[in-house]
Amino acid sequence: MKDLDSELSVRALGEQGLLKRLQKFCPADLVGDDAAVLTTQPKKSLVVTADMLVDGVHFSDRTTSPEDAGWRAAAANLSDLAAMGATPIGITVGLGVPGNLAIAWVERLYQGLTECLGQYNTVIVGGDVVRSPVTTIAITAFGQADPNQLIRRAAAQPGQAIVVTGTHGASRAGLELLLHPDQGHDLAPRDRATLIRAHQRPRPRLDVLPFLFPIPDTQHPTPIAGMDSSDGLADAILQICRASGVGARIDRHQIPIPAALSNWVGAEQAMKWALYGGEDFELVLCLSTDLAMKLVDQLDQSAMIGITTAQPDVWLVDSSHTYPDERLSFEQGFQHFR
Amino acid sequence: MKDLDSELSVRALGEQGLLKRLQKFCPADLVGDDAAVLTTQPKKSLVVTADMLVDGVHFSDRTTSPEDAGWRAAAANLSDLAAMGATPIGITVGLGVPGNLAIAWVERLYQGLTECLGQYNTVIVGGDVVRSPVTTIAITAFGQADPNQLIRRAAAQPGQAIVVTGTHGASRAGLELLLHPDQGHDLAPRDRATLIRAHQRPRPRLDVLPFLFPIPDTQHPTPIAGMDSSDGLADAILQICRASGVGARIDRHQIPIPAALSNWVGAEQAMKWALYGGEDFELVLCLSTDLAMKLVDQLDQSAMIGITTAQPDVWLVDSSHTYPDERLSFEQGFQHFR
Repeated sequence: MKDLDSELSVRALGEQGLLKRLQKFCPADLVGDDAAVLTTQPKKSLVVTADMLVDGVHFSDRTTSPEDAGWRAAAANLSDLAAMGATPIGITVGLGVPGNLAIAWVERLYQGLTECLGQYNTVIVGGDVVRSPVTTIAITAFGQADPNQLIRRAAAQPGQAIVVTGTHGASRAGLELLLHPDQGHDLAPRDRATLIRAHQRPRPRLDVLPFLFPIPDTQHPTPIAGMDSSDGLADAILQICRASGVGARIDRHQIPIPAALSNWVGAEQAMKWALYGGEDFELVLCLSTDLAMKLVDQLDQSAMIGITTAQPDVWLVDSSHTYPDERLSFEQGFQHFR
Repeated sequence: MKDLDSELSVRALGEQGLLKRLQKFCPADLVGDDAAVLTTQPKKSLVVTADMLVDGVHFSDRTTSPEDAGWRAAAANLSDLAAMGATPIGITVGLGVPGNLAIAWVERLYQGLTECLGQYNTVIVGGDVVRSPVTTIAITAFGQADPNQLIRRAAAQPGQAIVVTGTHGASRAGLELLLHPDQGHDLAPRDRATLIRAHQRPRPRLDVLPFLFPIPDTQHPTPIAGMDSSDGLADAILQICRASGVGARIDRHQIPIPAALSNWVGAEQAMKWALYGGEDFELVLCLSTDLAMKLVDQLDQSAMIGITTAQPDVWLVDSSHTYPDERLSFEQGFQHFR
């Protein structure tokens, strides 16, 4: 029975039948109306973000199980909320699937979605399932934030410390190992697993917010600027600087990169992956030196990597003078990776 | 220059370039961060609904211009909000497009989306544009409602009046005329245009809400039940009755059907389209007889079409005894149309 069921296709079950099966992944009180009704806290702002993921473009059975595709989709959206200083209320999931796709695949996708959401006390509040020639996942996540404690890209000021909340390059390294399983045999099995897991199960850094805003409704003397490093560390720094009209000096020795990664591919390749690999989903924050030091003290693997400057260029500098100063630009990321 | 521009493809412009072009359809203060920040009214519930539309499944260049596809997508989601008693705050738009699609097509889609949204004082607050082998539109709409004034499917009680807010069958008739332009030459040009417009530019019935709840924060002695008739009038009645554990008696002579439609295809076919055609996006409401009479008095083309019953079957009855009583069921809709 079990095996037969796992091979049942979307076409055989029908869209209505599939919708009914997927309802077990949603809280019962939110299902069965034209829309879901949610309670929000008074005085909070509503924060909304949307993502679309297409089979063969954004995920692939080659590197990603359906559970991992679900986890990653949820994590990317929760990371956008974290990057705004918002805590999640829920997500909607629009799903387009070919008729011959196995129901089991869809259920495993929802399993991964809800596993990730559950870690952050949030849920699927609604959605839609339709027929499509290509598997497509559309997620909208909404959260709430104290209007005084929003993190905005455009809020950086010269002279702030730039902090990253964790290591970079691991997700890109994990992807490499998934695409080329013959590579990296010098890696210790545990390091290999850690890098792969960084790609398959990234963590949105919602845990960072209480360190930034320990007291409700209060504002720091200068607001905190930031975004997540979903498109790479260099992109995040450049985006914040462009939006805020500031520049930055980043010390390459301060960028936290997993030691196993540098040992495996060498320092230069590891730095490229850290800067341009993307999908590490850490927060890149600009804040007062004082608050930055407290944060780095409290958060494992976080680091103060540089400062913002009035002069608008973004420089990667080398405190040990091995590498010449390098000016970062959006085009450079393009050259490195596209 | 103009012509060249209209033929520019998504691939030629790039996803970032396209995103930049589409920003003109969003309020400037909502763009440029990881997520959009919105203010909601205190004491209101957040109401959320999501839809996915796929080229060739839910829309087609054969019957639908990109502007109309956009209008219809926005209208369907706003209609779900209206059916909950909620007024819109905004929508997110996830868009998947093939590289060879003309930028002009995408801009016309957004034109249609924002035209519809503008009629109801709401906006696109965010979204995502990605590459996909098939054009896909994913919309999440959110609104707010007074928790005392929510319209729920499961809230119907025996002995309530069933009201529809307008005529049915016109959208299905309009689709027929678009699919078979050689048909309906007996129709007056104005009637033909009206039927086609019903399909291309349906109106979400947000205008009905102030008639139902003229005073904020008050609740009727019995709550109002309802949903929209997006999947057909019969489906809406059956869904409400199933969710509420009631039945209904509907008088076929009370169902408002455009006269031009009955004259064109005959009363029986017109009734089938009214019951099972779908996409009329009217509200189907169960409420006290007293309130129902006031509503019908105030709203053009609205009608009291029957009553809810304790006995759980849904009957279509004929007060003039020409047709035998007919028991409606979900399977019947299926037979009629799928």
